[in-house]
Amino acid sequence: MSDNKLGFSKKYKTHYTSDITAENEGQEALIAGFVTVHRDKGKIIFVKIRDAEGIAQIVLKEGQVPDEVWEIGKNLTIESSISVRGKIVADSRSLTGAELKPEEIIVHTLADPLPIDLTSKKTETLIDTIFEHRELSIRRPEAIAIFKIKSHIAQAVRQFYTEHNFYEIFTPYILGASTEGGAEMFPVDYFGQKGVLAQSCQFYKQAAIHSHEKVFGIIPSWRAEKSRTPKHITEFHQIETEIAFGDDKTIMEVQEQLIHFVITHVKENCEAELKELGRESLKIPDLPLQRIPFPEAKARGTELVEADGGEEPEGDLSTPAETLLSKEFEDPFFITEFPTELRGLYYESKEDDETTTRSLDLIAPEGIGELSSGGVRVVDPEKLISRLKAKGLDPAGFDWYINMFRYGGVPHAGFGLGFERLTRWITGVDHIREAVMFPRTPDLWTP
Amino acid sequence: MSDNKLGFSKKYKTHYTSDITAENEGQEALIAGFVTVHRDKGKIIFVKIRDAEGIAQIVLKEGQVPDEVWEIGKNLTIESSISVRGKIVADSRSLTGAELKPEEIIVHTLADPLPIDLTSKKTETLIDTIFEHRELSIRRPEAIAIFKIKSHIAQAVRQFYTEHNFYEIFTPYILGASTEGGAEMFPVDYFGQKGVLAQSCQFYKQAAIHSHEKVFGIIPSWRAEKSRTPKHITEFHQIETEIAFGDDKTIMEVQEQLIHFVITHVKENCEAELKELGRESLKIPDLPLQRIPFPEAKARGTELVEADGGEEPEGDLSTPAETLLSKEFEDPFFITEFPTELRGLYYESKEDDETTTRSLDLIAPEGIGELSSGGVRVVDPEKLISRLKAKGLDPAGFDWYINMFRYGGVPHAGFGLGFERLTRWITGVDHIREAVMFPRTPDLWTP
Repeated sequence: MSDNKLGFSKKYKTHYTSDITAENEGQEALIAGFVTVHRDKGKIIFVKIRDAEGIAQIVLKEGQVPDEVWEIGKNLTIESSISVRGKIVADSRSLTGAELKPEEIIVHTLADPLPIDLTSKKTETLIDTIFEHRELSIRRPEAIAIFKIKSHIAQAVRQFYTEHNFYEIFTPYILGASTEGGAEMFPVDYFGQKGVLAQSCQFYKQAAIHSHEKVFGIIPSWRAEKSRTPKHITEFHQIETEIAFGDDKTIMEVQEQLIHFVITHVKENCEAELKELGRESLKIPDLPLQRIPFPEAKARGTELVEADGGEEPEGDLSTPAETLLSKEFEDPFFITEFPTELRGLYYESKEDDETTTRSLDLIAPEGIGELSSGGVRVVDPEKLISRLKAKGLDPAGFDWYINMFRYGGVPHAGFGLGFERLTRWITGVDHIREAVMFPRTPDLWTP
Repeated sequence: MSDNKLGFSKKYKTHYTSDITAENEGQEALIAGFVTVHRDKGKIIFVKIRDAEGIAQIVLKEGQVPDEVWEIGKNLTIESSISVRGKIVADSRSLTGAELKPEEIIVHTLADPLPIDLTSKKTETLIDTIFEHRELSIRRPEAIAIFKIKSHIAQAVRQFYTEHNFYEIFTPYILGASTEGGAEMFPVDYFGQKGVLAQSCQFYKQAAIHSHEKVFGIIPSWRAEKSRTPKHITEFHQIETEIAFGDDKTIMEVQEQLIHFVITHVKENCEAELKELGRESLKIPDLPLQRIPFPEAKARGTELVEADGGEEPEGDLSTPAETLLSKEFEDPFFITEFPTELRGLYYESKEDDETTTRSLDLIAPEGIGELSSGGVRVVDPEKLISRLKAKGLDPAGFDWYINMFRYGGVPHAGFGLGFERLTRWITGVDHIREAVMFPRTPDLWTP
């Protein structure tokens, strides 16, 4: 019985579908949910009802249920919201070991015929409709599975950090336009002043480690990039982490433990959802994850691109190279020791080699690619100033950030791990927008 | 020992300050943190070091520590980041029952003299400096206590919902400008199109209950209001909740259980922080919380305002009335049955009385006032359309929202509870901006 469960009115329900069990045989129960299946076989009607905890099947037999129940049952439509009152009867043929013998059906709303198909398998033609009517398509079984898993990922992430004594922080989203360049940021009008939406909370989480030493958050970020790829959206969240007295080794350890913890949690708590998505094969990674220095990754990526008939340009690992390389792995892996010239100016270089940073990316396997970027931060104000100048930026715009390190700069490292990218990889969906309830891309920002 | 603790490099530390205990006597330890106190008494120097888990005191005696340790110790400055190596020796005079006998001090950064005082008690003159140098003032002991408590509040909120089978959702932040009026919203330029920052996720959480039945999130919201009061900021978070098959009674039960759970968690986990803030008196509320119908609250509020020499206008409870009323209570309480004309058009009215809604506010005691607003939602599309028209709004701009209810409208209720307001009340700070690391108000949006 659901007496200890909070969050519904007894007027509408007393039991969840998950309470229809042999154990509860003989109980009078009122369940409520949405009609997901309505099969009229003439003298028998099968109705499936979806609620928060699963699906229950109701069987109506003509003559065996009261006439008005039969009438109501015949006329039900997909997505109608209903309550069903009846008695719980053990039935070994049922998945839950029992079924609800219906005595009354209360229709809250009889749904109109839907403009999109909620039950068919996903197809290319369906994809556009799915996002056009996103308020409806999030009811598709695969979407429900994705967002249940996403909720579990968030829960596991926070549990992991909390158990390791990290503090959760909340950072600002509207920033002054002058703070950080201006490219690839969405402009905001802040009471007539020019602001932007934060591309990253990095400066703020770095400030917070002086108070809390180890901080994390699942924090919104925006990037006004017109990238139309399966791994880009304009509005997303990063699992942000920053660690005083930590270094590159520390943040690799934290990330591999985190990934291990999250995947284990999802495998244990979302078995049905992984099955719905055909993702039972999701593998708990073997630790430690591999660490591959950039030159080695670049060389192997180049080989793979060339074997594929392509050409790998100079510089950073190209997206095709990263994808091909990522397909060679069963578990996520790190690319380490990125060249200084390819990385953000905040990354500290190796003590004996200014051309190589102590920074790294976490790469998901199976062709997914980059999940996170991070590294050891520069805390020497003079080094920051000279690096800013070298990039043609005015250090004056970074005053508070630079000066912060004059008042207790601490060796530290951190990373940002894409929450939706992680969800995409874990759920195995083709495109990152499927891992977002109401995604934002250059072409999509409604509903 | 900290061997099972993750998140630091052994180069910088092996122990937290909390590991300096009689139990660990005899161990060689390396701790690391920030100098918060440096008292030079001539032949003896006291140094206090802050890390994530607390504060440790190191005592240096001339002649008893190596000469170079004495030299370094003498020259330390407030907020310098250091590591200290030594042996743990039991000492009953110490708070933790042991102290670290220093054998080596490693200075990572010697801090310059700070532009603000981190140790003095808060004063009116200090307040502006605190927000001018927020990246430094978050290191003040009271700020550290506030944000540790805030992290615990977030943790408790999520634990509460997870235990009651709610799913966490993530909703969009950039919305099309046409979606919801335009007043009091920050304009965003979305690739040349006119967007706004979400004032509320209400439409989206209502969509999500059709998939997940019970949903929650700690979700960012923005309001471009020029309100300069101790309870307004422009960028904040709401503890958002929406419940299919729930009603006004349901959301009051959920809120009172939530508040009870959160306060209990904070009392149990943040004793030192509440003490730092002089907030030991925080009371675990007695349940059920009082429910006061609006007419009664208005009458009492009017009495209180008039007794105070003021005048209470017609209409909603004025802010002075709410504040005075709130001071009469020891525990939070609900104001219920708000008149339809005073509430948002999405609130359902009573079955037998169209002029009264099934909506409610949760009010914090001690003069704090409104924490949350919520109620039963209108799900009848025709009623929504006529209400929109009555307010002079074009229903066409609300198409997807209204139509959603044609495809399975379900009786439901929900609320949004101000996360920073809750933090303000629990921590007992005067102004809501003190409950935010980097607050945004009409006058403040840096750093």
